[in-house]
Amino acid sequence: MWVRTGENKLIKAGIVGASGYVGGELLRLLVTHKDVEIKVASSKRHKGEKLARIHPDLYGFTDMKFTGESIFDVLDDLDVVFLALPHGTSIKYVPDLVETGVNVIDMSADFRLKDGSKYVRWYGYEHNYPDLLNKFVYGMPELHREELKNTKYIAVPGCIASSSIYSIAPFLNLDLDNNIINVDAKVGSSGSGSEMDESKVFSERYNSIRAYKPVQHRHTPEIEQELKFASGKDVKIALSAHSVNMVRGILTTSNIYAKTDEINAWQLMRQFYDKEKFVRLIMDKKSNFKYPDPKTVIGSNFVDLGFAIDRYINRVVSFGAIDNMIKGASGNAIQSMNIMYGFKENEGLTMPSLFPV
Amino acid sequence: MWVRTGENKLIKAGIVGASGYVGGELLRLLVTHKDVEIKVASSKRHKGEKLARIHPDLYGFTDMKFTGESIFDVLDDLDVVFLALPHGTSIKYVPDLVETGVNVIDMSADFRLKDGSKYVRWYGYEHNYPDLLNKFVYGMPELHREELKNTKYIAVPGCIASSSIYSIAPFLNLDLDNNIINVDAKVGSSGSGSEMDESKVFSERYNSIRAYKPVQHRHTPEIEQELKFASGKDVKIALSAHSVNMVRGILTTSNIYAKTDEINAWQLMRQFYDKEKFVRLIMDKKSNFKYPDPKTVIGSNFVDLGFAIDRYINRVVSFGAIDNMIKGASGNAIQSMNIMYGFKENEGLTMPSLFPV
Amino acid sequence: MWVRTGENKLIKAGIVGASGYVGGELLRLLVTHKDVEIKVASSKRHKGEKLARIHPDLYGFTDMKFTGESIFDVLDDLDVVFLALPHGTSIKYVPDLVETGVNVIDMSADFRLKDGSKYVRWYGYEHNYPDLLNKFVYGMPELHREELKNTKYIAVPGCIASSSIYSIAPFLNLDLDNNIINVDAKVGSSGSGSEMDESKVFSERYNSIRAYKPVQHRHTPEIEQELKFASGKDVKIALSAHSVNMVRGILTTSNIYAKTDEINAWQLMRQFYDKEKFVRLIMDKKSNFKYPDPKTVIGSNFVDLGFAIDRYINRVVSFGAIDNMIKGASGNAIQSMNIMYGFKENEGLTMPSLFPV
Amino acid sequence: MWVRTGENKLIKAGIVGASGYVGGELLRLLVTHKDVEIKVASSKRHKGEKLARIHPDLYGFTDMKFTGESIFDVLDDLDVVFLALPHGTSIKYVPDLVETGVNVIDMSADFRLKDGSKYVRWYGYEHNYPDLLNKFVYGMPELHREELKNTKYIAVPGCIASSSIYSIAPFLNLDLDNNIINVDAKVGSSGSGSEMDESKVFSERYNSIRAYKPVQHRHTPEIEQELKFASGKDVKIALSAHSVNMVRGILTTSNIYAKTDEINAWQLMRQFYDKEKFVRLIMDKKSNFKYPDPKTVIGSNFVDLGFAIDRYINRVVSFGAIDNMIKGASGNAIQSMNIMYGFKENEGLTMPSLFPV
Repeated sequence: MWVRTGENKLIKAGIVGASGYVGGELLRLLVTHKDVEIKVASSKRHKGEKLARIHPDLYGFTDMKFTGESIFDVLDDLDVVFLALPHGTSIKYVPDLVETGVNVIDMSADFRLKDGSKYVRWYGYEHNYPDLLNKFVYGMPELHREELKNTKYIAVPGCIASSSIYSIAPFLNLDLDNNIINVDAKVGSSGSGSEMDESKVFSERYNSIRAYKPVQHRHTPEIEQELKFASGKDVKIALSAHSVNMVRGILTTSNIYAKTDEINAWQLMRQFYDKEKFVRLIMDKKSNFKYPDPKTVIGSNFVDLGFAIDRYINRVVSFGAIDNMIKGASGNAIQSMNIMYGFKENEGLTMPSLFPV
Repeated sequence: MWVRTGENKLIKAGIVGASGYVGGELLRLLVTHKDVEIKVASSKRHKGEKLARIHPDLYGFTDMKFTGESIFDVLDDLDVVFLALPHGTSIKYVPDLVETGVNVIDMSADFRLKDGSKYVRWYGYEHNYPDLLNKFVYGMPELHREELKNTKYIAVPGCIASSSIYSIAPFLNLDLDNNIINVDAKVGSSGSGSEMDESKVFSERYNSIRAYKPVQHRHTPEIEQELKFASGKDVKIALSAHSVNMVRGILTTSNIYAKTDEINAWQLMRQFYDKEKFVRLIMDKKSNFKYPDPKTVIGSNFVDLGFAIDRYINRVVSFGAIDNMIKGASGNAIQSMNIMYGFKENEGLTMPSLFPV
Repeated sequence: MWVRTGENKLIKAGIVGASGYVGGELLRLLVTHKDVEIKVASSKRHKGEKLARIHPDLYGFTDMKFTGESIFDVLDDLDVVFLALPHGTSIKYVPDLVETGVNVIDMSADFRLKDGSKYVRWYGYEHNYPDLLNKFVYGMPELHREELKNTKYIAVPGCIASSSIYSIAPFLNLDLDNNIINVDAKVGSSGSGSEMDESKVFSERYNSIRAYKPVQHRHTPEIEQELKFASGKDVKIALSAHSVNMVRGILTTSNIYAKTDEINAWQLMRQFYDKEKFVRLIMDKKSNFKYPDPKTVIGSNFVDLGFAIDRYINRVVSFGAIDNMIKGASGNAIQSMNIMYGFKENEGLTMPSLFPV
Repeated sequence: MWVRTGENKLIKAGIVGASGYVGGELLRLLVTHKDVEIKVASSKRHKGEKLARIHPDLYGFTDMKFTGESIFDVLDDLDVVFLALPHGTSIKYVPDLVETGVNVIDMSADFRLKDGSKYVRWYGYEHNYPDLLNKFVYGMPELHREELKNTKYIAVPGCIASSSIYSIAPFLNLDLDNNIINVDAKVGSSGSGSEMDESKVFSERYNSIRAYKPVQHRHTPEIEQELKFASGKDVKIALSAHSVNMVRGILTTSNIYAKTDEINAWQLMRQFYDKEKFVRLIMDKKSNFKYPDPKTVIGSNFVDLGFAIDRYINRVVSFGAIDNMIKGASGNAIQSMNIMYGFKENEGLTMPSLFPV
């Protein structure tokens, strides 16, 4: 093992649900993080197996095995716990974890919404921890950096939600002709996890464009919440999500019905993301990549933003492109963690995208 | 050559612009058509070369070479001419062709719009043949079958236009909350032709989702025209087109803002496409393919339709999936030709899709 | 249903194991076959479900459901039974089926080898029906056409075996420097079936080149048997098989160590396949496809053959490209059936490949 | 620009031919390298354009533009020059560069072969610099680490050559039954560069397996040279190269005809690569990745090795998987440079592979 995981590290982390893709991506990014030592990676399904069997990128980095123990049995040692669990499962652990004083970074939706009543409608369960909802900070550094500095609890945004919020927020300063914003999301297969299912068999899935959640997508309320936070406006999100023929990456195409022009639109973008290091504005019409494209962010923590102005129908078509596993999940988690602990904000996240791939 | 092209055929056809993908698909479908003999295939770029060098599917079917002669030099022999030329080029040939009495099937947009004044806005040239615009029939059999029986001139619909019109038309019978209909199109690479261009190099294009025409797409006016024809309503189409990581296929996701329910929506669909042989309504929630997906139509002349009803925001999300080269171009051309000549409507088009591919 | 399955058909067929990819491809090809009516399609796993749920290409062609009954309960009505079952399972049905007098086309390996003793070594079971092994004809029309005319029993070749035999056989007329022939096979994912398995999940499989059977591949003895039949020579096949990033298609790259030149090699090829309608020799150095490539045969019943001559090491590198589901399985089955029944040999098989896809 | 390129760097580098994929990969890896400042990136084709237009991964890292000046005009400032030029072009620059005293890392084949006479046969030009051929060290750290410590000139191995040498070398300690070793290479599209060409258009290339150099591949003599160096044995390499349906990655499948068993084979491997940090031996039969697979190395500097033993024909089928752009080109260049300058050997190369992608 030539990359040590325990030398001179400042904090110790545990990952619950570490055998899924989100957990795997946390491991992949943390294994070379200067300040974090991975102490525990748990998985019910793969208890006792080497991490590298499931996440072959880890061969050569660690000999660790998945533990099946409860996180509570190994907690003494940990500074922070990442929960990479399904929606509705995190909530079973968090209240007790919070009691122990450990910091919690939750990758699920269970602590993203401030209004607990929305969990019944969108997630089908009652949320009985309004206090915790208030304590958790939505882990989007560009909107909540100051809060992140002063929290112990982070709710990491959803992948489609991230791309949508980043690309829509600046344009809500326009006079909207319609408060419904149409978002069409194209998502790589990693967004639907590593679990088996007949519809995921390669031969059934290759060359496919699958509308997997065309209406009532669960990221809707968090997008609406954060856009309200960013702009003060109540908008409704008409989201449709499609799974497309690739593994990583999201492109969201959002329609904001309002009148503007290119110059004004660029100003709105620039003002909003002034000095943000992980936001790139794409505007080179001579490039092969005239608009944001997942291809140019895969493997990096960047969100690429761009737009087109329609003069036929007054609308801004706004694009967001991210690596769904990084800026759409584990990258934002680590960036938020860096802020929470006062590490360098981009520590562990400075890799350029893997272009071309 | 085991498939003869000249025995007992009823009509003789020429294809102008036969080396592109649309021309190639016409050849691919006609080479086994019972009633049509291919007499001429012209290409400036590939004059004198064997068809099969450019379209390797034709090896074993024909030894023909691309002619570079003007179509007018070989016209005596032809019953019908297919023009597979760029927009703005067909119009240079059609008036003279019409004079000769030959039947014309134009794959370009030059004769799709009834209102000639729209060509300036959308295509950048003035259209001086209003009479011809009236004579050409929009080659969508499901909407214009009777007219097709009595014409000599067919304007074949655009690929994105086809998928959009098929999937939206039935729902315009609803009370619309908004006359703007948002259409998000995902198109395979064959939609952008076979010509070289740095952005098409495989390494630059693989794994990409490229917004290539996010606003003011040229198919907009023909969609609006045909939806008006089908429903009597004036709607505006807010279309964005993306090129995705596959070669064949289109999925359009359209948002019709109106209140309805599943049962009513199915009734609208069924009434509209009653007895249409090439329209399939997709509604099996236990299948791997719950909504229309290009994967299940590739290689066939089917258009697959389906939808989801959003109760959060009153909208129908309506899907259309086609093979852009077949039902989106050459298949509709041949189906329309079959009707024009009184052949069996599905002659040459009865192949199932190539599943899985 | 616009394509009827029962009118004026000459024979009635049943397919056992019809829900897998091989069974599905039989259905896809037979549903438009002029002379064959599909009477029964059985599947244990999908009993009672519509065929089109599992094989969505069949929507619009048939409303049939998978039967779960034993084939013996519906046999009275059938002229021919296709067995699309795993190796070792066909053999349990065939002896009884033969007793009933029905014709049998077996897609498995259970009746491919003439020397029954080889089943122990290569398939792990003892084969106790030497008489049946003699009665079954290896379903490769180019080698066994005359026998096929006079049999009731066909053993359809394996996919990799087909591509290997077609591309190697003509060159065994050379003086071999080495009787070991190295074959490297690249196979699309459909070759490994539709059953679930973690390693087949799209995210695990995309962009992968997976050596799934690098040594002792089971197609070895049938390749050796047929090459002996074709050339009289005993050669040994050193085969390695890889699953690659596509769904359909096989390319085999075979190394025959012998001295020759281009002209002689082409002569050998031409002599061997003189007048064969489904064999194409690829030799256009100005094409984008200079050597056989699965891309140009997908969807068709062609095998494309070509080669390169190495003067540094005396060897012929010989390529075979087929659609593994058609010429590598169901297409050869139907071509062989056509011969057995005296139908037109290419009935149901005249489609060009789907290029580009 | 949040990643500075000039602070506290130890050496200054220039890249000639920086707009191609190899040059781009050098930039991508060096832009975050602690000890190297990129001072010049030249490109004739893209002179004056921003690096990030051509290599969009560099957005946010550098505002540099391609210079079109001769490297000799900016040499004063440089410690090392990388030449990412075609074969036959580097040799025009190197003799003069060497005169200036600058260190040279050549990505082409022009200084890989020790025996200058081989350039006529394999590359078609006469090589008149035998002294330079002796001074250049073949940039494969696992074989030439000590020499690299004491050189100023590095010839970086070819991509297929690397994978072949790594996977074959340990097995040459066996008693060979045949001195011809058969190598079948499957290579991603990035291996053939970013230049336009009709055969590279996405629609022509997707789903393709293209034999692009089935005989007399130019990497042959360097493989033979290095295997001789490693084992003392003269072997002949029968190499065939195929371009497959992905962008990054190589798998080589090599056949070494010799008798051995698993245990002995593992020992040979382990002894050979004892303590090598970038070589991983793949041997987990319960993983989804039982043999080396490009999918698990993409984005990293690892070479994954594994094998299968054939007892039917005495052979070892040995696999090597690398990212052709990293361990197959720019990664080995940087690892070799690190050794040459005494930097940490893995500086800039510690990223895990991007799994899944």
